[in-house]
Amino acid sequence: MKSNIIYVPIALSILGLLFMFIKMSWVKKQSPGSEKMQNISKSIKEGALAFLAAEYRLLLIFVIVASVALFSISLFVETTSWMIVPAFIFGAIFSALAGNIGMRIATDANARTAEAAKTSLPQALKVSFGGGTVMGLGVAGLAVLGLSIFFLFFINQFMGNEGSFYTNMTIVLEALAGFSLGAESIALFARVGGGIYTKAADVGADLVGKVEAGIPEDDPRNPATIADNVGDNVGDVAGMGADLFGSYVATVLAAMVLGNYVIRDISANSQFSDDFGNMGPILLPVVIAGVGILASIIGTFLVSIKDNNAKEANVQKALDLGNWVAIGLTVIASYFLIDFMLPQTLQMNFFGEGIKNISSLNVFYATIIGLAVGALISMVTAYYTSLGKKPVLDIVQNSSTGAATNIIAGLSVGMKSTFSSVLLFAAAIYGSYELAGFYGVAMAASAMMATTAMQLAIDAFGPIADNAGGVAEMSELEDHVRERTDILDSVGNTTAAVGKGFAIASAALTALALFAAYVTFTGIDGINIFKADVLAALFVGGMIPVVFSALAMKSVGKAAMEMVQEVRRQFKEIPGIMEGTGTPEYAKCVDISTKAALKEMILPGLITIISPIIIGVLFGAEPLGGYMAGVCVSGVMWAIFQNNAGGAWDNAKKSFEAGVEIDGEMTYKGSDAHKAAVTGDTVGDPFKDTSGPSMNILIKLTCLVGLVIAPLLGNHSGETAVAETKKEIRVEMKKEHDSTTATVTISSTQKGKQLQETRTIVGSEAEVKAEIEKIKATLQ
Amino acid sequence: MKSNIIYVPIALSILGLLFMFIKMSWVKKQSPGSEKMQNISKSIKEGALAFLAAEYRLLLIFVIVASVALFSISLFVETTSWMIVPAFIFGAIFSALAGNIGMRIATDANARTAEAAKTSLPQALKVSFGGGTVMGLGVAGLAVLGLSIFFLFFINQFMGNEGSFYTNMTIVLEALAGFSLGAESIALFARVGGGIYTKAADVGADLVGKVEAGIPEDDPRNPATIADNVGDNVGDVAGMGADLFGSYVATVLAAMVLGNYVIRDISANSQFSDDFGNMGPILLPVVIAGVGILASIIGTFLVSIKDNNAKEANVQKALDLGNWVAIGLTVIASYFLIDFMLPQTLQMNFFGEGIKNISSLNVFYATIIGLAVGALISMVTAYYTSLGKKPVLDIVQNSSTGAATNIIAGLSVGMKSTFSSVLLFAAAIYGSYELAGFYGVAMAASAMMATTAMQLAIDAFGPIADNAGGVAEMSELEDHVRERTDILDSVGNTTAAVGKGFAIASAALTALALFAAYVTFTGIDGINIFKADVLAALFVGGMIPVVFSALAMKSVGKAAMEMVQEVRRQFKEIPGIMEGTGTPEYAKCVDISTKAALKEMILPGLITIISPIIIGVLFGAEPLGGYMAGVCVSGVMWAIFQNNAGGAWDNAKKSFEAGVEIDGEMTYKGSDAHKAAVTGDTVGDPFKDTSGPSMNILIKLTCLVGLVIAPLLGNHSGETAVAETKKEIRVEMKKEHDSTTATVTISSTQKGKQLQETRTIVGSEAEVKAEIEKIKATLQ
Repeated sequence: MKSNIIYVPIALSILGLLFMFIKMSWVKKQSPGSEKMQNISKSIKEGALAFLAAEYRLLLIFVIVASVALFSISLFVETTSWMIVPAFIFGAIFSALAGNIGMRIATDANARTAEAAKTSLPQALKVSFGGGTVMGLGVAGLAVLGLSIFFLFFINQFMGNEGSFYTNMTIVLEALAGFSLGAESIALFARVGGGIYTKAADVGADLVGKVEAGIPEDDPRNPATIADNVGDNVGDVAGMGADLFGSYVATVLAAMVLGNYVIRDISANSQFSDDFGNMGPILLPVVIAGVGILASIIGTFLVSIKDNNAKEANVQKALDLGNWVAIGLTVIASYFLIDFMLPQTLQMNFFGEGIKNISSLNVFYATIIGLAVGALISMVTAYYTSLGKKPVLDIVQNSSTGAATNIIAGLSVGMKSTFSSVLLFAAAIYGSYELAGFYGVAMAASAMMATTAMQLAIDAFGPIADNAGGVAEMSELEDHVRERTDILDSVGNTTAAVGKGFAIASAALTALALFAAYVTFTGIDGINIFKADVLAALFVGGMIPVVFSALAMKSVGKAAMEMVQEVRRQFKEIPGIMEGTGTPEYAKCVDISTKAALKEMILPGLITIISPIIIGVLFGAEPLGGYMAGVCVSGVMWAIFQNNAGGAWDNAKKSFEAGVEIDGEMTYKGSDAHKAAVTGDTVGDPFKDTSGPSMNILIKLTCLVGLVIAPLLGNHSGETAVAETKKEIRVEMKKEHDSTTATVTISSTQKGKQLQETRTIVGSEAEVKAEIEKIKATLQ
Repeated sequence: MKSNIIYVPIALSILGLLFMFIKMSWVKKQSPGSEKMQNISKSIKEGALAFLAAEYRLLLIFVIVASVALFSISLFVETTSWMIVPAFIFGAIFSALAGNIGMRIATDANARTAEAAKTSLPQALKVSFGGGTVMGLGVAGLAVLGLSIFFLFFINQFMGNEGSFYTNMTIVLEALAGFSLGAESIALFARVGGGIYTKAADVGADLVGKVEAGIPEDDPRNPATIADNVGDNVGDVAGMGADLFGSYVATVLAAMVLGNYVIRDISANSQFSDDFGNMGPILLPVVIAGVGILASIIGTFLVSIKDNNAKEANVQKALDLGNWVAIGLTVIASYFLIDFMLPQTLQMNFFGEGIKNISSLNVFYATIIGLAVGALISMVTAYYTSLGKKPVLDIVQNSSTGAATNIIAGLSVGMKSTFSSVLLFAAAIYGSYELAGFYGVAMAASAMMATTAMQLAIDAFGPIADNAGGVAEMSELEDHVRERTDILDSVGNTTAAVGKGFAIASAALTALALFAAYVTFTGIDGINIFKADVLAALFVGGMIPVVFSALAMKSVGKAAMEMVQEVRRQFKEIPGIMEGTGTPEYAKCVDISTKAALKEMILPGLITIISPIIIGVLFGAEPLGGYMAGVCVSGVMWAIFQNNAGGAWDNAKKSFEAGVEIDGEMTYKGSDAHKAAVTGDTVGDPFKDTSGPSMNILIKLTCLVGLVIAPLLGNHSGETAVAETKKEIRVEMKKEHDSTTATVTISSTQKGKQLQETRTIVGSEAEVKAEIEKIKATLQ
């Protein structure tokens, strides 16, 4: 029975998907509103689907090329099976599917949310959060299902083979890494493409519509308004869905790989065995992920409000309740699962310190650290980006002296926010590593990601509400409808910022876990930045996120400029457009965004994937490790900087809606200070929605590519690592007067050959003992 | 005779200082112009001197506290002499003096340049470049003089003591590091303080004067105009002088420390000796620095133009000629000096690869790499920031759609510019290390810095010309005077940008050399980022430059806002100010800048100095190494990003002065696009003049602090390293059938005690040989 525990996450993921279908049909059963609303919703859906279709056509080429490359690797490298190719392809398909499901439900739910908002706010929340739930469960369900089924399949395929458990499991996990690689590659393109799309449309619509023509957001007279709403879906929904799908898979995979090393370390003394097919530490993260789906389903039931006059705080409270219950349930379940699935004491190899005995409880504490630090980083993020808090108020004050001081203030808020986030993050690395090695780090990340379904439900309801507001505005519904969707939208903005903090923290921890897996995988002796080539690679790695961000931002700038010119042209050339008698050519704007996004996503994507391959092949495994570390360090800084600066600018601008006090005077929308704030927000848009969120994927994908090509870089650990476990030390000590002589005999079997080494050490007792300890340490 | 070669740089530095005095009195002999001009010049000088005096008073406290701390270290640590304290104090004083000399001559030269511009452009260049020359020679002369005299003094003090050459030299260099630490600490405060001062005044003056009131730059009606001109001096001149003084000293020091390791490595086989007091590799960088002064003096004679109708290109050509001749002479001299002072073959220890034989010619090639990469990085910088080049044109185009797209374009130019710069930089590390180890890296940096006198003369003439323009404007001189100073100013902007590229490259290489010295100093076994604490410290280090920049920018924003409000108030409250009948209260603006600068420079300065101490003391030597690497990687990115973005914005704005074509229409100053460009420039101001240039000092100072506290972190190499040099290996091999037995005996003396170790290895011949190589490598 216990040995079949892998069926638990499979069952739970199927349960999640079933629940998703139920929720989906419920949402679709809601009234889609008037014909006008349906038409608008349909335009958005069609635009979004058209973009996705075009995107997938382009990505098909990439998937084919990458598959051929992976297949070639599998031919040359013994430890890589060709089955990495189907895993990769399915990873890509599942990732696209996850984005697609989310996008479809989001575009179905927008008009229905607007329609529901006619009746009441609770109903509007129910519909929009219902849409979010569908997406969350779709992503999490597909991720766990895909991972577990492929894992099951590969185990049946390879575990019976000749060779040690460790070697075979390495082949299994290497193939499984293909699934993650597929998911993460698609996520990168989807994030970047979607991010460019949405921001080009948004910036274009805002600059001409809001600032120049002075018409409100989502006004149907604005030709870019449909493109703007399509963008919300392809960027915030489909892009984010693919992103979190990739994170989720990568996190669990990293934990599984490190679980395999735990088993190897334990086996150094005596062969590891347990009731879970001897792979408890590997299965644990998958099972926790499955349980996280169940906990999320339970959590979603708690998200509801009763009061029709509820404010942002009430809605936020409802979401928080659901979220914390889901997290709490997962924590409790994790405690019992860790106790149940791990041996009471684990032997773990700490680099440079040798094997240590670790209580399984330590793994639980590591997950607690992960959750605590994730929550704290989210709080830091919320502090730096929330309405009414000092950083945002600071930007507001600086808006009174113009756009320049607003920008300077925003940039410095973003930069400053790295301080606490990075300290917390460093503490998480240090703490979870001290508790349970890199397995602890990976489990901390897994714990953060376990309730992805719930997190995503909360994240995705925001854009749905945003779109609902757009539909309401464009269909000229009554004001109270827009007011209600605005409440939801505003909560959505906060949850989006908080979610981003969480996403960075988990992505960074995941990347570290992958990085650790990489080091152990290649069997290199650590990554020593005192070697010039490693140091040089560290610098090159540090540069990649910066250049990546530049490309993403420049693409947005370029596309936005085209959009601005198109919108200006339409305002000038289409008669009666401002009076509402002429119809804008929405499709032209949609077209500009689509083309720009597809064209511009290619270069940054390729840089991300190809650079580590070049470094690895030309300079070897250790410089590639330096490169990976450089990407991670720099990527984390730029992610935090860009996300928080963007979020802060956004809310600084929003502050003017309710009015702010500057120099003792109340200042509102339309003032010069507000215009300055709009400029800041426009700069922040690509920061927080294009380049910033791409950093997560960049760092994970870099480490994944490293992990997948690791076997190519020679010095593969599969065998040497096993050989090392067969080293034996025998020490004989002899004392004479004040001098001690020790004879140390080290016998080892490498590739079936015997190697014996005897060392004689003469000196004072303390010195000799110290020397012996040193020798022992180097052998572990 | 040869053993007295240390007197060569002393003599050359005195020669440089003599030449400086001649040039200084020549400049002072020039006519200072009308009484009005003299008054304006005097106001600027007084404001600047008042700021420096206030700054020095504040820094005195810092110097006292730091001296006490250093003295305490010297009490506890055997290898640190208390003489580090006077060295530190003199380093601080010399650095302040260098800034002061520059500041005084610059404020003397501005009105004289304006007056000279009445006669002709060649004369104006002569005066302004004369001022620059005084500063360049002052900085370089003081740096070489201070270093050589302290070195000479310490050698006489310590080299006769008991103990090996290496141990004693370590004490000498450790004490000398105090000189560098003093210089660099003052540089940090001067840079940050001066940067905040100048940009607060500049932003304040521009935002209200140019943008709101529509009056030209340096208009006497603008209350912030004196503060603005004072700022040019305390920021660009005094700040830069202290900065380059620090760089120069740190670079030479790092090369000396690594020279000491070269001697140690050579001595591993047989005691190193040469005709230069057995310290050729240590003296080489100092001698080259001395020769660089001479070459610079010769170069300055070539900087002149004949044609009164010369344009920017002619002036640039004259400067280039002087610069390249100085560099060329230094290269030629370096070739002969390297040949003369180094043994033909050097033994160098390459980490993880063991001792290699290196031809002394390799060191020369490393210096060539340094110069080539320095020049290439300067060219990259020039490309990204020059008028008429694609990146700047791009920003210009993006200005047509408003400030937001201008900002996005500028940010992405800055970010993108990291690509080639970092690749070149990585190539420099890799190449110079491959050629001659970390000594090669340090010599590459030394070569870059050798012609500091010339570089600085070129850099400093810009702000003088800028100020001359200010004096001309404020004294309402004829238009052709301003036109001539504008030509010089425009060339000055280009050289400033190019100089910054050079400064980053050399600072980064210096930091790496210091980093290498640190690793060898602490005797740690490299810096392995696969250890969680080292990795965590790498992240924390990566965060520091970001937070530092945020603090610097925020300070500028805050001070600028105060300035804006003060200027607005004066415009409103002082009757007749706009008509030129009322006199603005210049002093109030000067006061705002002074107070803000002094208050705001403290926190970033302390963070820089204290953070590495905390990390080192709490976590040990290896995590501190990770921290240093993090600061370097992140610091280099943010330096390039900020400097180039700022430079590009500046020139994008300037492009409108001559008019630019946007969408087929010529667009000029005063257009909306120009206003957007002014906003971009304002954001870029703190980037390129406050936080950006501070990054150089931040990374060098971090590594210097690490180097100085290295002995505190235990495991000091002074002795163990010496002990290691006394290790002896004896190998006996015996072949039997297909098995080989080797007996390896390692005898070592540690702290006077004998330690003997015998290892017997059995295996195939290849295996045994490989094992022996491994043992040898670990011993080296």
